[in-house]
Amino acid sequence: MGKSRGRSKGRAKQPDEFELIRRFFAPLAAKAPGAFGLTDDAATVAVAPGRRLIVTTDALVAGVHFPEDESPQSVAARLIGVNLSDLAAMGATPEAYTMAIALPKNCDLGWIKAFADELGRLQKTHHVTLIGGDTVATGGPLTVCLTALGSVAKGHELRRNGARAGDLIYISGTIGDATLGLKVMQDGIAGLGKRHAKTLVGRYRRPQPRVRLGLGLVGLATAAIDVSDGLIADLGHVAQTSRCTAEIDVERVPLSAAARAAIALDSRLRERALTGGDDYELAFTARPSHRNAVAALARQVRLPLTEIGRMRQARKDGKGGAHLVDVRDGAGHLLPIVRTGYRHF
Amino acid sequence: MGKSRGRSKGRAKQPDEFELIRRFFAPLAAKAPGAFGLTDDAATVAVAPGRRLIVTTDALVAGVHFPEDESPQSVAARLIGVNLSDLAAMGATPEAYTMAIALPKNCDLGWIKAFADELGRLQKTHHVTLIGGDTVATGGPLTVCLTALGSVAKGHELRRNGARAGDLIYISGTIGDATLGLKVMQDGIAGLGKRHAKTLVGRYRRPQPRVRLGLGLVGLATAAIDVSDGLIADLGHVAQTSRCTAEIDVERVPLSAAARAAIALDSRLRERALTGGDDYELAFTARPSHRNAVAALARQVRLPLTEIGRMRQARKDGKGGAHLVDVRDGAGHLLPIVRTGYRHF
Repeated sequence: MGKSRGRSKGRAKQPDEFELIRRFFAPLAAKAPGAFGLTDDAATVAVAPGRRLIVTTDALVAGVHFPEDESPQSVAARLIGVNLSDLAAMGATPEAYTMAIALPKNCDLGWIKAFADELGRLQKTHHVTLIGGDTVATGGPLTVCLTALGSVAKGHELRRNGARAGDLIYISGTIGDATLGLKVMQDGIAGLGKRHAKTLVGRYRRPQPRVRLGLGLVGLATAAIDVSDGLIADLGHVAQTSRCTAEIDVERVPLSAAARAAIALDSRLRERALTGGDDYELAFTARPSHRNAVAALARQVRLPLTEIGRMRQARKDGKGGAHLVDVRDGAGHLLPIVRTGYRHF
Repeated sequence: MGKSRGRSKGRAKQPDEFELIRRFFAPLAAKAPGAFGLTDDAATVAVAPGRRLIVTTDALVAGVHFPEDESPQSVAARLIGVNLSDLAAMGATPEAYTMAIALPKNCDLGWIKAFADELGRLQKTHHVTLIGGDTVATGGPLTVCLTALGSVAKGHELRRNGARAGDLIYISGTIGDATLGLKVMQDGIAGLGKRHAKTLVGRYRRPQPRVRLGLGLVGLATAAIDVSDGLIADLGHVAQTSRCTAEIDVERVPLSAAARAAIALDSRLRERALTGGDDYELAFTARPSHRNAVAALARQVRLPLTEIGRMRQARKDGKGGAHLVDVRDGAGHLLPIVRTGYRHF
């Protein structure tokens, strides 16, 4: 575990870094022999022969990636969720993680304990272990940075760039719930029933990384990505690196009953569902000949895998750039969403 | 490279995350095939047969770990320095790193470019490559988190817990320069010449990770640590995990001419030199029979390696706890520094 490099002094209400590590974080590393109980400068990670290490890093900042008053359980779920989702998109088995946490002065022991407890529960769910990190003070908002380590059979990692024209486009689960959940938290959705609202908020607060699906896609998907920026943006990333145009039928994009209820109340929310982020479902492409194999995988991982379109030869847009995503309605008409762009900041 | 998960909108003065990655960070990853040009969800890392991966994470926060107005070059040097120092303390060869950076709103393109340029120079010096990360916005101070990956022959990593009674205690380079440099920056040291002041500040601003020394210590040192919390505190960590008491002779602790000049002006600065952090030298222990081998290594890596004391059987302190570090003067008398404790926050 990293040692203190701070110049902070006299934070009377918090125990020092060593005490925080000993009480709350070292227990999370107890089952990883290479973590040395977080008492050394670094950790060792064993990678089995024939497998390759996969590494991803994501940072979350209070007030930017989650509301300032978010519960410690939700912050932990989001932190683990977004990082394991990246591993899932590569088809990797999660192995371990390091975490750096910058604690604001008003962050009390109860918060840290609840956060660590939730990390412990998530570790069990996902079979991963903390192996190192750093605990520092900050004059700003709570900031957490997680580096997740996984492994995949050499040369079998899922990439974004493997889609070819003719491949079918699939999406797991349902799309848009998380961004609609955020809308509920921020402004509310007038007329939406409590049960639906709770479902949507829960999807925002506790992303479910599709780890088992990712493992099942190895050797089956030609390209994969996790939907974090929004369905259209992320399919755009696949199309760009694969040098294709993704064509999707908006009527086929799977929506939950809660999302359908919200959109029925306010039709503008349909575009938000397609372009908002934080779904952490997997979007992937597969050859049409593998349609049955995808259906079998859906049953195996107990998750809907919905065919929503097809990869096409790359088209140029009006300005000579690559045209990445076509969104069509049920009748095949292009929807204007493609012209509004899709970057959400 | 991690994708945006922010809810920030309309930051007109900054290009979006994808543009920042493409312009400034992707070039840093160009030589790492497993980084996929930072266009995928995660990176792959090859670990050679017979070697084990070593992982360390450290975060730096503006206003806590360095002054708010620190130059981008200095922030980059500190970030790379502190993390590679942890690898050096394990005897690891640096391989790659991931970086998450949280940018405040007032952080302009010029700053980011200078920061990335300096990372590029440091990459060449230390033969490491960026392989992934995350670029996010923050409402607080600049915060950077680096995870460094290295490798070491299986079972040969240097640990903190291997020192035995009778082992000699060594320190590389000189001690206290960085903390005295920080003092110069914060309050000044009255009467200190400009050249000395500049030397000390430079040692604070640009930590030099002792990577080559760490590699040379594999198979030679019985325990090692990098001096980041301060010499006394870090020897305390070695003593604690090795279940020994470290006994050092304060007269033998190597000081630079600049540090000696500062202490001559204000004798209280001697204790600061021993207990202040940020040296990033390596402290290590070795069997007395390896004295000649240590001297040969010093010549090989062109760095003074000074014997400053010896590990002893663990003693109890007055309260029944472990007594970790004895600091004695040239005549062998215990100095009161041990009673003031050594945790620097």
